Amino acid sequence: MSVPVKIVLDNWHGTVANANKLFDSLTDEQLQADVAPGRNSGTYLLGHLAAVNDRMLPLLGFGEQMHPEMNEVFLTSPDKSGKEMPSLQWIRDYWKRTNEALNSHFSSLTPEQWMQRHNSVSEEDFAKEPHRNKLNVLVNRAMHMTNHLGQMVFLKN
Amino acid sequence: MSVPVKIVLDNWHGTVANANKLFDSLTDEQLQADVAPGRNSGTYLLGHLAAVNDRMLPLLGFGEQMHPEMNEVFLTSPDKSGKEMPSLQWIRDYWKRTNEALNSHFSSLTPEQWMQRHNSVSEEDFAKEPHRNKLNVLVNRAMHMTNHLGQMVFLKN
Repeated sequence: MSVPVKIVLDNWHGTVANANKLFDSLTDEQLQADVAPGRNSGTYLLGHLAAVNDRMLPLLGFGEQMHPEMNEVFLTSPDKSGKEMPSLQWIRDYWKRTNEALNSHFSSLTPEQWMQRHNSVSEEDFAKEPHRNKLNVLVNRAMHMTNHLGQMVFLKN
Repeated sequence: MSVPVKIVLDNWHGTVANANKLFDSLTDEQLQADVAPGRNSGTYLLGHLAAVNDRMLPLLGFGEQMHPEMNEVFLTSPDKSGKEMPSLQWIRDYWKRTNEALNSHFSSLTPEQWMQRHNSVSEEDFAKEPHRNKLNVLVNRAMHMTNHLGQMVFLKN
């Protein structure tokens, strides 16, 4: 594996491991609370992170999104929108299933494939901007995850 | 510039730009508040991020840390430790000065130099673990920054 790909993959896996450790340590009651007064609930943020993971499947060319119906709940609507959420147990499982799906694809990708374009950039634009590749998505999504994890640690007493 | 180096550098600069936008939008009063009840103050977190930046100078082989006396205040002591903090204006400037110092070095580093070891790993260990390089530090520190930025957005009303 190339050194930069290893750095970015290690960073991703380390961040997911930290997330799992935090989520597994939180009771359902803790996870259902808001991370700070008037802010998102842990439940919403967990669903949000899972849905972002899920959308990485088509974005990285790994196949269809598992639950596109979750986009409306966790991506295009804010928390407390009135949109019906699945049960917390389902959301916890959704998070784990999206990570398992991603991992199964990550482990078979070659360094050359990580340097290929992601599916939100056209071939034409990618020719001019070759940094808009799959590795870039993985950096960006790890950043997004840890941004919210910084908030979700507040759910711990 | 190599594609992976560009990805990581763009990610760093984008994160610093987001941080500056947030910090510049916060009044001193907002920044002095705690990010959530019983949690760190914005002032402490800003000093913490600046001190982490400052320590990157020796870590990446760019020279001496500018203010090693800040480590005790912002790195090895928690917020509200009773350690005397500099003024908020000084901390705001410290943040900007550390970023300027880092940028001046980043812009002159070659892709090959980004792949060289950082100063917390011995030459012996680096020979076995070549991913422990300067690029890795930049990924890691951008993650750390955005983790705290996720908390500091709560300072906005």
